[in-house]
Amino acid sequence: MIPPIPRPTIYDVAARAGVSKSLVSLVLRGSANVSPSRRRAVDAAIEELGYRPSRAASSLAGSRSRTIGVVIDDFGNPWFVDLLRGLRSVLDPEEFHVTVADLQLDAVSGRNPVDGFLAMHAEGLVLAAEPEPAMLERLTIPTVVAGSRECIPSGADIVATDDVLGARMALQHLFALGHRSIGHLTGRSGAARLRLAGYRESMSEAGLPALVTGELGGTTEGAGYAAAGELLDDHPGVTAIFAANDTMALGALAALRERGREVPRQVSVAGYDNTAIAAASYLNLTSVDNHSDDIGVDAARALLARIGDPEREPRHILRKPSLVTRSSTTKPPP
Amino acid sequence: MIPPIPRPTIYDVAARAGVSKSLVSLVLRGSANVSPSRRRAVDAAIEELGYRPSRAASSLAGSRSRTIGVVIDDFGNPWFVDLLRGLRSVLDPEEFHVTVADLQLDAVSGRNPVDGFLAMHAEGLVLAAEPEPAMLERLTIPTVVAGSRECIPSGADIVATDDVLGARMALQHLFALGHRSIGHLTGRSGAARLRLAGYRESMSEAGLPALVTGELGGTTEGAGYAAAGELLDDHPGVTAIFAANDTMALGALAALRERGREVPRQVSVAGYDNTAIAAASYLNLTSVDNHSDDIGVDAARALLARIGDPEREPRHILRKPSLVTRSSTTKPPP
Repeated sequence: MIPPIPRPTIYDVAARAGVSKSLVSLVLRGSANVSPSRRRAVDAAIEELGYRPSRAASSLAGSRSRTIGVVIDDFGNPWFVDLLRGLRSVLDPEEFHVTVADLQLDAVSGRNPVDGFLAMHAEGLVLAAEPEPAMLERLTIPTVVAGSRECIPSGADIVATDDVLGARMALQHLFALGHRSIGHLTGRSGAARLRLAGYRESMSEAGLPALVTGELGGTTEGAGYAAAGELLDDHPGVTAIFAANDTMALGALAALRERGREVPRQVSVAGYDNTAIAAASYLNLTSVDNHSDDIGVDAARALLARIGDPEREPRHILRKPSLVTRSSTTKPPP
Repeated sequence: MIPPIPRPTIYDVAARAGVSKSLVSLVLRGSANVSPSRRRAVDAAIEELGYRPSRAASSLAGSRSRTIGVVIDDFGNPWFVDLLRGLRSVLDPEEFHVTVADLQLDAVSGRNPVDGFLAMHAEGLVLAAEPEPAMLERLTIPTVVAGSRECIPSGADIVATDDVLGARMALQHLFALGHRSIGHLTGRSGAARLRLAGYRESMSEAGLPALVTGELGGTTEGAGYAAAGELLDDHPGVTAIFAANDTMALGALAALRERGREVPRQVSVAGYDNTAIAAASYLNLTSVDNHSDDIGVDAARALLARIGDPEREPRHILRKPSLVTRSSTTKPPP
């Protein structure tokens, strides 16, 4: 058990600096109406005492929670980790708290994370998931949609990466290596649908048949395993597999190994999202980077702008993805 | 853009049932003071209109946020996903919202997720992380610590799995297979420290030297890769590696492959936490299951009990882990 450590208060700072508590407050808020000498005295007292202003206390005293809620689909798919980093790089210095809830488990219980964030007086919402339209009915706080989503609440800003372009980049890479028989693993999600569209466009433009599995499944590792198995059984001649995300690509690796197909010597594999899974040295997957950290930065800025001006015209920012090539893709076997 | 769908209100239900709004409220709260015929009328109206009570609205009207905050270390390590599932299986039916914040990024910015949850009027806190003692100073809400932690706020309940025992189970398994030269990858965390203790105890009882690396590092995939490289360079004769978690074990797989060591034929690998990483068919890692879902259930129950009775004596629940053997461990080479 840790004994409570006494924490210096604003009164201690005021006493040490020989000024009033209100003057310390003014200094903390960066007010221009403080003389340089008094500011120096307060700064010195803050440093000597190791004083840190209590954001919780000031929030509780005021009417603002200074909280931004982030709704994600599934904590098991780590693509959102970079998004959070980007959000926080903007929101932390503005002294907002960022907290996350997922839809994955709510599907069972009927709980609604949007209602949850309203109940906790969140000041803004980042939708990085596919909520049911019903969840958005009472959405009265500034909202930004991050990523490609099927359901967009009216009045929300949108910040996304161009998923069609990302898929086209992956296909361009596989074409350049010499692949022609390329399968695609897809699943039910707004982002997967756009990646599928990019795949279809690319294959069609190259005069090649689209080989797609998983259209009725999810986008998990298990779904990728199942879809890859189906693809390999139906089209044993594929020399490359492009998966709608890295987690599905990990599932595909298992299906390939089970069939004795070596990666990348016999079959190349590319994922999407450039998550920690793709970057892990052991897996080292070629993947499309959707720059989720930049999406987070843009989403946070859009949210702050809307909190500052709720009447602001909604904007739609579409960023360019890029391709990270690693050892899971190479030339097809001769 | 989705046009806003008009949602039936409690007034619509009352009008349809021919009763007052207060009576609908009583029915919704399961009051016994409602006649069966009026209850039937209200139930019928609710069903006809597809009415769902708005928890957010009732929370906003009342003084309770009905929110439980969960503090985790790092969204990149998926061990917490099962913990959340367990928490939600208890808290969802009690109409609590669960929201998550991490310490990982806060370390840089100095933001404090505990303050964040206080600012959003969370009614309880689950600490599944290693916060700085300073973060816990103003912790005035019911708190339960989930997992093995170095820093326990006074008055908190503790629900954990026995990490010393879990490590002993992994070692018992490796001994039974015939391994004697077993290395351990550790890192800085309360859980890792206990797993290291279990490893040291087991090796010492078997009269074997402890071979440990990573003591000053983290517990990420990259840290596991580095620690395994060091272990293999210092002790090339190890036939088994036990990592403090699955993410580190994934890093170890890469270090082994780089050195041309086959898993499991030449070197067996065991992880800890039984995460989705260990369960992924492609990796299929032997791992200690700390039953995080059960920890979540117990933690949620402890929290509800403390919310109901803040003077309740803190309890310490220590659960037994179990071992999940998969294809990454086998007999040592002859």
